[in-house]
Amino acid sequence: MSEYILPIARLIECFRRLPGVGAKSAARMAFGVLDMSEAEAEEFCRAIMSVKRDVRLCSVCFDISDTDVCAICSNPNRDPHTICVVEDTRTLSALERAEEYNGLYHVLGGAISPMNGITPDKLHIKELVTRLSDGTVTEVIIATSPNIEGETTAVYLSKLIRPLGVKVTRLAYGVPVGADLEFADSETLARALEGRREF
Amino acid sequence: MSEYILPIARLIECFRRLPGVGAKSAARMAFGVLDMSEAEAEEFCRAIMSVKRDVRLCSVCFDISDTDVCAICSNPNRDPHTICVVEDTRTLSALERAEEYNGLYHVLGGAISPMNGITPDKLHIKELVTRLSDGTVTEVIIATSPNIEGETTAVYLSKLIRPLGVKVTRLAYGVPVGADLEFADSETLARALEGRREF
Repeated sequence: MSEYILPIARLIECFRRLPGVGAKSAARMAFGVLDMSEAEAEEFCRAIMSVKRDVRLCSVCFDISDTDVCAICSNPNRDPHTICVVEDTRTLSALERAEEYNGLYHVLGGAISPMNGITPDKLHIKELVTRLSDGTVTEVIIATSPNIEGETTAVYLSKLIRPLGVKVTRLAYGVPVGADLEFADSETLARALEGRREF
Repeated sequence: MSEYILPIARLIECFRRLPGVGAKSAARMAFGVLDMSEAEAEEFCRAIMSVKRDVRLCSVCFDISDTDVCAICSNPNRDPHTICVVEDTRTLSALERAEEYNGLYHVLGGAISPMNGITPDKLHIKELVTRLSDGTVTEVIIATSPNIEGETTAVYLSKLIRPLGVKVTRLAYGVPVGADLEFADSETLARALEGRREF
């Protein structure tokens, strides 16, 4: 039996399902909710449901968006000749924070990992190839994570895209190997973009 | 402007209001919500609102409860002759985890801190005195925190309760079990020496 009364125990359980949350911080947060006003708790719930209901994927780049085409894809000041391919939204956000890149993005939705059932057809690779078909894009920068799945994905993509006559580059090593891209600091990401090499 | 789209940014803001949550973990949790199923998100919201709506204070000890009288106060196997006075529910839970105490509790709802406007009348002290009036309770164990506010509260309570003919004790000060002596602070070591026991 839990040491807490049922409503608290249930909320702790919900918090524990979130990434990176252990028993102690889940309990601390549940008591934080208890200390909220009812209005704040309602706002919290509205924010949770809004994330589930209003967030969709951009129909062009597959980044999360609250509009059909995301703010980056619909921004006329972004360079339409370059696409940076990332695994997920958080990597995209990390690159945006580096303020070094002004092209477009393409979010794969993961990295190739046959062990976990993630084959190329599970990712938005087909749609990337379609985006390259009209000749506007002259360079694809591959910014997958520097781990086995990311490397596999990078090699797969470069083999797929080079025959289309598009230059394929990737982030320079400068990103610490084995780390998760989303946690890289802005300076490291900026250097990695600046020193990108051709595949 | 936030680097995230509005629904995510709003949810991050809500998570950041919780105790001990910084920007990075708030973002990680918001993306965790994004990865939840809609059913899980709804369950999360129900759990939040349930904590706000179903949790009240026990009418006897003022611990949080989902019933009028909490499970400890209504448990006939708990010793009704001893009351352990704590500042809050989390301290009560910590003591329950220690599985050493089988009496009742009284939750003050904080500690005396005139600087923060917490005077004795803001705490459930009057109700504690009422509980002592019928002579059932023979010992009150004061388990307030070992800091200035907790000490002030302990001294205040002992002066109030002793004249009622009830034995007043407090938790022993000493070195925490399992800790390295070299890291113990001087104040703790002084108290541990002062309260030494014969082998």
